[in-house]
Amino acid sequence: MTANFEIEPLDKLNFNAFFSLIEELAAYEKLPPPDTEAKKRLKQDGLAANPKYNAYLARSDDQYIGYVIYFMTYSSFIALPTLYLEDIFILKQYRRQGVGTKFFEFCLSRAKALGCGRIEFCVLDWNTPAQNFYDKLGAQRLGWLFYRVNREQIENSKLES
Amino acid sequence: MTANFEIEPLDKLNFNAFFSLIEELAAYEKLPPPDTEAKKRLKQDGLAANPKYNAYLARSDDQYIGYVIYFMTYSSFIALPTLYLEDIFILKQYRRQGVGTKFFEFCLSRAKALGCGRIEFCVLDWNTPAQNFYDKLGAQRLGWLFYRVNREQIENSKLES
Repeated sequence: MTANFEIEPLDKLNFNAFFSLIEELAAYEKLPPPDTEAKKRLKQDGLAANPKYNAYLARSDDQYIGYVIYFMTYSSFIALPTLYLEDIFILKQYRRQGVGTKFFEFCLSRAKALGCGRIEFCVLDWNTPAQNFYDKLGAQRLGWLFYRVNREQIENSKLES
Repeated sequence: MTANFEIEPLDKLNFNAFFSLIEELAAYEKLPPPDTEAKKRLKQDGLAANPKYNAYLARSDDQYIGYVIYFMTYSSFIALPTLYLEDIFILKQYRRQGVGTKFFEFCLSRAKALGCGRIEFCVLDWNTPAQNFYDKLGAQRLGWLFYRVNREQIENSKLES
């Protein structure tokens, strides 16, 4: 079965649907979803003249069924921008119908159009369905460890900006 | 022993020193360094009005001894920008003198000034000196797997932009 859908950019009209999908992804990843203040920032940051992230939604008839978020990073060794894929998410009932593959192909075409030398992303270590999906598409799993410093650590740093 | 040094932004005058340091890092990481074409792009992309990456160098007297590269990504769950730390590199003879820690503190202060909710970065799995360094500074190693799609795969995608 193949879902019939269109990919459209985030805008004022589909923002609430986008936000609901993010809440669904947070539940799936067992991570806390954005709160009300975060929702406001997300809207402002995504719909600004120079948006802080790029988001596209998949719409099937009048139902929004998934989204992708990416931004530009950069490789100093190959001196080309990298398309950093932050999230691909598809509602459970629309999975295994080619939507994820279409989103990935969409990212490949954006990367090509933007002159990127690489696409990079991270997958949770327990998320084997996602790993199988990306492995099948030919992405290479590299031996890098992923680190994070959180907001409290940034705010409590004794340093002056 | 503590090295005496200043942190200064990348500019036209220090670009060649910056490029030599990148070549040193590539050798250390056993990865191919940028070629002549890449050097041109790196200069253009780093010194543009809207640079594609942010770079700062550490200078000790008239010797450039290290650099840091970062860019802004974004967390959709906390709806705040992330400072993504691409590289910290210090010439071998200047290591273990506090330069790396100063660079990391510089990133913390930049993240604070830019209103970031997180700092994120990747470390090669065999690079235990770097892992020990970041562990000591309090960064959390997360269970994410890092993936990449390379330039050939992007260019050979059958898709139109």
